[in-house]
Amino acid sequence: MNLDETHDPALTSWVESAQGPTDFPIQNLPLGRYRTPAGAQRIGVAIGAQVLDLDRVIELDLLTAEAKAAASSALRNPLGLTQAERVALRRGLSKILSIQDGRARRHASELLQEQTSVQMLLPTTVAGFTDFQAGIHHTLNGRRMRGGGAGSLPANYHQVPIAYNGRASSVVVSGTPIRRPRGQISGPAGVDYRPTQQLDIELELGIWVAQGNELGHPMALDDADSHIGAYCLINDWSARDLMAWEMDRLGPFTGKSFATSVSPWLISPEALAPFRGRAYERASEPGLQPPPHLRSEAQQANGGLHIGLQVLINTEQRRAAGEAPIVVAESHTRHLYWTPAQMLTHHTSGGCNLLCGDLLGTGTISGPAPNEGGSFKELGGSGTTPFPVGREARCWAEDGDLVILRAKAQRAGFQSIGFGDCAGHILPSQGGAHG
Amino acid sequence: MNLDETHDPALTSWVESAQGPTDFPIQNLPLGRYRTPAGAQRIGVAIGAQVLDLDRVIELDLLTAEAKAAASSALRNPLGLTQAERVALRRGLSKILSIQDGRARRHASELLQEQTSVQMLLPTTVAGFTDFQAGIHHTLNGRRMRGGGAGSLPANYHQVPIAYNGRASSVVVSGTPIRRPRGQISGPAGVDYRPTQQLDIELELGIWVAQGNELGHPMALDDADSHIGAYCLINDWSARDLMAWEMDRLGPFTGKSFATSVSPWLISPEALAPFRGRAYERASEPGLQPPPHLRSEAQQANGGLHIGLQVLINTEQRRAAGEAPIVVAESHTRHLYWTPAQMLTHHTSGGCNLLCGDLLGTGTISGPAPNEGGSFKELGGSGTTPFPVGREARCWAEDGDLVILRAKAQRAGFQSIGFGDCAGHILPSQGGAHG
Repeated sequence: MNLDETHDPALTSWVESAQGPTDFPIQNLPLGRYRTPAGAQRIGVAIGAQVLDLDRVIELDLLTAEAKAAASSALRNPLGLTQAERVALRRGLSKILSIQDGRARRHASELLQEQTSVQMLLPTTVAGFTDFQAGIHHTLNGRRMRGGGAGSLPANYHQVPIAYNGRASSVVVSGTPIRRPRGQISGPAGVDYRPTQQLDIELELGIWVAQGNELGHPMALDDADSHIGAYCLINDWSARDLMAWEMDRLGPFTGKSFATSVSPWLISPEALAPFRGRAYERASEPGLQPPPHLRSEAQQANGGLHIGLQVLINTEQRRAAGEAPIVVAESHTRHLYWTPAQMLTHHTSGGCNLLCGDLLGTGTISGPAPNEGGSFKELGGSGTTPFPVGREARCWAEDGDLVILRAKAQRAGFQSIGFGDCAGHILPSQGGAHG
Repeated sequence: MNLDETHDPALTSWVESAQGPTDFPIQNLPLGRYRTPAGAQRIGVAIGAQVLDLDRVIELDLLTAEAKAAASSALRNPLGLTQAERVALRRGLSKILSIQDGRARRHASELLQEQTSVQMLLPTTVAGFTDFQAGIHHTLNGRRMRGGGAGSLPANYHQVPIAYNGRASSVVVSGTPIRRPRGQISGPAGVDYRPTQQLDIELELGIWVAQGNELGHPMALDDADSHIGAYCLINDWSARDLMAWEMDRLGPFTGKSFATSVSPWLISPEALAPFRGRAYERASEPGLQPPPHLRSEAQQANGGLHIGLQVLINTEQRRAAGEAPIVVAESHTRHLYWTPAQMLTHHTSGGCNLLCGDLLGTGTISGPAPNEGGSFKELGGSGTTPFPVGREARCWAEDGDLVILRAKAQRAGFQSIGFGDCAGHILPSQGGAHG
């Protein structure tokens, strides 16, 4: 899309909490699904520290006919909107939330609720969950830690956006507690079924598919972006000891399927339009270029996303001392070797059909520096070199830890926008404490 | 369940086509979903060569109150029934279809349609698709063909029912044509995106989950069978050349996700009760036993299923000559190293939640003999030793081939039952013929 008046950095909302530093200034306007304190399910829009009730916006007849039709569509499924509907709704919401608009402001008390007072839900039914391995430094780090040597990549890495099918049923919304899983662990004394000792995180960008494709009809690369309805953060919780024992040639299974957290807000392609840019710049050797069906000038010029990422932890000790979560890693989506459009195109290249509600994870996004690991495995040298968490240290997630992923899209000349937290609190294994 | 009057081999139906050799004698009675010639969607019961319209059975008030309530539940979701509902409906249907019953017979023309006149649909929405690797001879064959030596198994094979997440969206009902997929193929001249040259099949038993479990609450082994609502046949179509290039450590992706065929009828645990028996008999060394949470006397004594399996092909040439499909391989579910209950228990062992509509594949079921391969890769020595198909020969599936999987549960003293065909006809790749 072209940038329009909704991206104007001078635009200000009458919602005061949207004026200061916030993930949700008036330039963002993501949709989400939530439960009110009274137990009703609602679709809303994040604005500052508030959520705008879309049902009420419609009831009060605050939108133009076109925006109102799009809002009604969002009530049925906030991910199901067409691009035209998303744009119409965004323009309508931008207008009624802008400081110039008096009419909506008059109804503020009916329209707005504190985000802290509602319970966020998954924004849509997860049709399928596919996880890629597009973070090049995570891939390099993994190969190095398995003895592949520095700079080693899988033979197909330059041609194939490597991916596997994840488990959709255990995708949970941010805030859902994460129960330490049990599983088979192979040790010197044999194989035991017991709680994981290597509970890890994975920092990923999520891509929500809004419009699918028919079985047998692959997406063309330059059409693939139009199928994307939203982005989010994913924490792909991983039990490394379970994975080490279970993985033969078919990939991770119980070591991943116990939970995958997603941030609740549907960050739209329109909100992220100012933060598009060049895709990963590959060296010029021909063997390093994507194959023709995954390559286009348009994708190379504008297929990338430029979003800063953070991993934060708050431990039980810190919380008891009244301390805030502390940043333990920073990364950036510029480390993605493949663009979202390349991922969708590859996914469908054999004819596989994507559905509205399909969630694609980019895979762990790490940077090249030691403090840019998108997993604890990388930050802690696979359990050998604990990384600092304030005055404490960690190799793996411990019971009671709260892990939070955050994202911020920034670019000079634009209002920066965030994704909202993707958080999970570790509970001890069922039937006993960790260990 | 205990065996009851519905399993009596002397029981005969007034439906004549159910009296002779058929997959669907009155002892079977599987539910399915179909579209009538007029375009209406219906739930029905296979009986001989006919399908019994469950809506009409209810309208004509032919069932007892208990069976009628179960039938109404089946109209909402034929997989969603509880075990008690399945038993009640089975008893009711067995009664009205038995030769002793005059009332239903009087309405035969309203109740029955030829199966050949209706279009079978997927019996339920596929929530997720998980594929195991429980066929021990397929595993041994795969290792041997990759140079692992005879008798070589993955290190975890005796403890872990190895599995991976498959793609649910491309699960299609038997009869759906299979379009030869394109994908990345690595050859001497480099990597090309072109139609697969190694289109293969995989002969599998499918397990439909009726009642799921809560996230974080693993199933106990001796409870797991009660979550299973039905069985079917699965052809897990595979493009071996795509898989060879794309698989690093995360398993198959585009090489499997283009299509997975399932037989349309929900073969119930009750219909299969006479064909339960001992699980795979492992050698007695302690290292070969399942871990304690996957081991029980009840499972060892009665967790196995005893069903004969066949792979048939009909080629274009044969069809032109008016010839029937020909058997190219025979196998048996006794070659499954893990029972269905062990698969469900392992699946949920880390806390993963299963849902109503989850489909679990056993993995390819091969026998030890050369003509017992459950895949063309095994039957044709990985493309090196073509196997006969009548007067023709094959290494891989060719355009125009019709591949059919069949299953028959047999045991002395009982009426044998079948699953119905799991068939797929190979269409050339989109945009051009094979090659």
